[in-house]
Amino acid sequence: MKILVSNDDGYQSPGLVALAEGLRALGTVHVVAPERDRSGASNSLTLDVPLRVRRRPNGYMSVDGTPTDCVHLALTGLPEIEPDIVVAGINHGPNLGDDVIYSGTVAAATEGRFLGLPAIAVSSAVHAPRHLDSAARVVVELVSRLRERPLEPNLILNVNVPDLPYESLAGFRATRLGQRHKAEPVVAAQDPRGRTIYWVGPAGPEQDAGVGTDFHAVRNGFVSITPLQIDLTRYSALETLDQWLDGERR
Amino acid sequence: MKILVSNDDGYQSPGLVALAEGLRALGTVHVVAPERDRSGASNSLTLDVPLRVRRRPNGYMSVDGTPTDCVHLALTGLPEIEPDIVVAGINHGPNLGDDVIYSGTVAAATEGRFLGLPAIAVSSAVHAPRHLDSAARVVVELVSRLRERPLEPNLILNVNVPDLPYESLAGFRATRLGQRHKAEPVVAAQDPRGRTIYWVGPAGPEQDAGVGTDFHAVRNGFVSITPLQIDLTRYSALETLDQWLDGERR
Amino acid sequence: MKILVSNDDGYQSPGLVALAEGLRALGTVHVVAPERDRSGASNSLTLDVPLRVRRRPNGYMSVDGTPTDCVHLALTGLPEIEPDIVVAGINHGPNLGDDVIYSGTVAAATEGRFLGLPAIAVSSAVHAPRHLDSAARVVVELVSRLRERPLEPNLILNVNVPDLPYESLAGFRATRLGQRHKAEPVVAAQDPRGRTIYWVGPAGPEQDAGVGTDFHAVRNGFVSITPLQIDLTRYSALETLDQWLDGERR
Amino acid sequence: MKILVSNDDGYQSPGLVALAEGLRALGTVHVVAPERDRSGASNSLTLDVPLRVRRRPNGYMSVDGTPTDCVHLALTGLPEIEPDIVVAGINHGPNLGDDVIYSGTVAAATEGRFLGLPAIAVSSAVHAPRHLDSAARVVVELVSRLRERPLEPNLILNVNVPDLPYESLAGFRATRLGQRHKAEPVVAAQDPRGRTIYWVGPAGPEQDAGVGTDFHAVRNGFVSITPLQIDLTRYSALETLDQWLDGERR
Repeated sequence: MKILVSNDDGYQSPGLVALAEGLRALGTVHVVAPERDRSGASNSLTLDVPLRVRRRPNGYMSVDGTPTDCVHLALTGLPEIEPDIVVAGINHGPNLGDDVIYSGTVAAATEGRFLGLPAIAVSSAVHAPRHLDSAARVVVELVSRLRERPLEPNLILNVNVPDLPYESLAGFRATRLGQRHKAEPVVAAQDPRGRTIYWVGPAGPEQDAGVGTDFHAVRNGFVSITPLQIDLTRYSALETLDQWLDGERR
Repeated sequence: MKILVSNDDGYQSPGLVALAEGLRALGTVHVVAPERDRSGASNSLTLDVPLRVRRRPNGYMSVDGTPTDCVHLALTGLPEIEPDIVVAGINHGPNLGDDVIYSGTVAAATEGRFLGLPAIAVSSAVHAPRHLDSAARVVVELVSRLRERPLEPNLILNVNVPDLPYESLAGFRATRLGQRHKAEPVVAAQDPRGRTIYWVGPAGPEQDAGVGTDFHAVRNGFVSITPLQIDLTRYSALETLDQWLDGERR
Repeated sequence: MKILVSNDDGYQSPGLVALAEGLRALGTVHVVAPERDRSGASNSLTLDVPLRVRRRPNGYMSVDGTPTDCVHLALTGLPEIEPDIVVAGINHGPNLGDDVIYSGTVAAATEGRFLGLPAIAVSSAVHAPRHLDSAARVVVELVSRLRERPLEPNLILNVNVPDLPYESLAGFRATRLGQRHKAEPVVAAQDPRGRTIYWVGPAGPEQDAGVGTDFHAVRNGFVSITPLQIDLTRYSALETLDQWLDGERR
Repeated sequence: MKILVSNDDGYQSPGLVALAEGLRALGTVHVVAPERDRSGASNSLTLDVPLRVRRRPNGYMSVDGTPTDCVHLALTGLPEIEPDIVVAGINHGPNLGDDVIYSGTVAAATEGRFLGLPAIAVSSAVHAPRHLDSAARVVVELVSRLRERPLEPNLILNVNVPDLPYESLAGFRATRLGQRHKAEPVVAAQDPRGRTIYWVGPAGPEQDAGVGTDFHAVRNGFVSITPLQIDLTRYSALETLDQWLDGERR
């Protein structure tokens, strides 16, 4: 089994190292990850400048691009890799609810959607995790199980792991994404030359976080696993929209 | 009615100007757009450096950030705007099928998901459009209609307009996203110092592009309107995943 | 006469426009300037990514690079230009004393050192100039005079103009560079995530600013013109160094 | 003795490591270097965004800025360092003649001009050096000697070391900067979307490279040491310029 590992925190992130080293138990692991922290990069692709790959002393490859660039390049430009599955993470911090829209970790997994196995994005639920080994072990179990009993390939599993010793995890839960309130306002400040600057603020608090959501599972000590889809069409709105357009010139 | 207009091609893009000037017929228009071309930026948020806003001679505001940054900042940091709706575009080039994953235009609209009206992303189906006025007029009709007969607010309408004179448009179609094949491989080259560089290649050709898809509508001269959803949960996979996990420790 | 105009404040800077339009009285003017503000860029050259040139509606060309990139590219890659002289500015703010080390304006001029006429860097002595026309007129006089009575070509004239009506300027002074004290300390702050950041502080106050210096001339209403050299060798130290090394293994 | 070490190739460069580890024999060494390769950065200062410092596992500090930013921040914002001298390098590749104008290595040294001892910039004369230990040993000798017999403080020593075993070095030479011909033209190419791009080309060949120059010394196996000055005034041109201006309104 050949596994491509990437992330959005950069190739030196302890979360990435824990993940890559853990997965070696299952097969050949290739790491292709951003040169520096690209949190919040979402699915952004670098179109205006070229990418460069550097092989690091530990065998990891770093790319001066986004998480999406990394997986894109690995899958379409580095034929020696040809992975069966893409696993992204371990992100330092949760990717719950609306977070997945902005997440570079989920984006890296998304870019692996054309492979034979579902892609996996994995995050630790806290920003300074102490139990990366728990999250790594969870992923090893999931990949191992996928190998034996595959799920449909065009699926992304968004995994969030509470920062607990492995034995203290309450179990696994299949969840839906919850929802956050609107983000906190940007933070206005002044630079030393007296000009106004704005910092993007933190994500909003939980809004829809009841039973069944990823928020709820993690809060209760469960590993949350949300199946994500690539197709953003809101099928349930198609008929209404069709009728609504009817009044228009067709 | 207050309308926030943004895009991903930058505040100087002719498509943006056509859109903003067209929408003035319906109310107050505020333009907050990236300083430079940020095509392919997806929903990326700038977290590590602060943003700056510049007011341009024509009243537009430019931000040295991504499309998402622009709308985020306008909605949470510029209280004089408080729009009823966000409209993003007119993109020079289609946003069909898998394109929406990477699109900065769609991302700008997504960031307007907390407002009272659906957000709209609009693209011209060719990279060097000659009929931006057609696309602008289409959007004016849609916004005008939304004002009279609102659709559910948490919806994004992804609009692609064939590059035709307005009179030659075949009509409007409610569509689902089609699907592309895997993207073309990265293009390897050498810089003048003999080092290997990689360029991200073009999007893949159409794979699922039959009747009902956005590809099909545009190819046949129709304005394609796809309702998009924010919630990426693949609900249809939840039960299967639940059973699949059952074998695991819970 | 063919004149290449550049700057470091970007192709939209009013100072650049005043300079370029003023110089049209003397010949053909080509503008090749950075896409955005690159103050403090010094002589930095972009080596790792390629440059792109865009022709703007007013005929100016913008480059997504540094001031040095702009002049470098214009001189070695745009054969339709082939200027006789490079003029950089009008910078919004002084370039006095140690400022020239960091100045992108002076750097743009430096890159024109291989041409038949001395290069000129021109700055207004205040950050929000009201009399750009004075500075523009000063440069027109200097270039006009250079055309009639050339100075040695491998020279850079660093011109600082007080922000006064032309009639109120006290005259021209040939000056030497003064010297500033050490710069103000960096300004430490915290981003909204609680992490420490540092802003580069303002330049230091004047230290050596007596009669004969550029500081002194400008403070007294004179146009300061300092001849700069390209060769940074400290010739006066060569013999001492030679003796000092003598004790070393030779 | 407290020594601040920086460079422009980034904190992971073997040349930096060889230099920093070698200098530990003489005192306390602090490394503050750019996060990534910033070759060609010259004296550029980052004014529009803040800087961040990261402490690396080996104790080095990295900054997401230019070489000048690194030394500037270390000297004005990190009071625990307070060095007696700044040493920059070992650059992979020569900094001879006009190279010093663009060099980030020389710029890092320049930023140390306010300290009690001359700053040193050191480069290996080839791009893929095999004898970094020779260059490191040369610097240790120079710093050691400076400590015993100081030279005037406001001096920068630009040191270029042939890539030879230490025993094969021919000795030390006090040199003046030679001069290169105009740089090679930019290299025009096309990106995969058919748009023209330009790469900055290599430095020009040697023009003034005779006896006494840095080029000549290195070519003959000597360590070249050029004293550089900060003051760019061309004093020899002051009187001529004064007379030339006389015809002008004064």
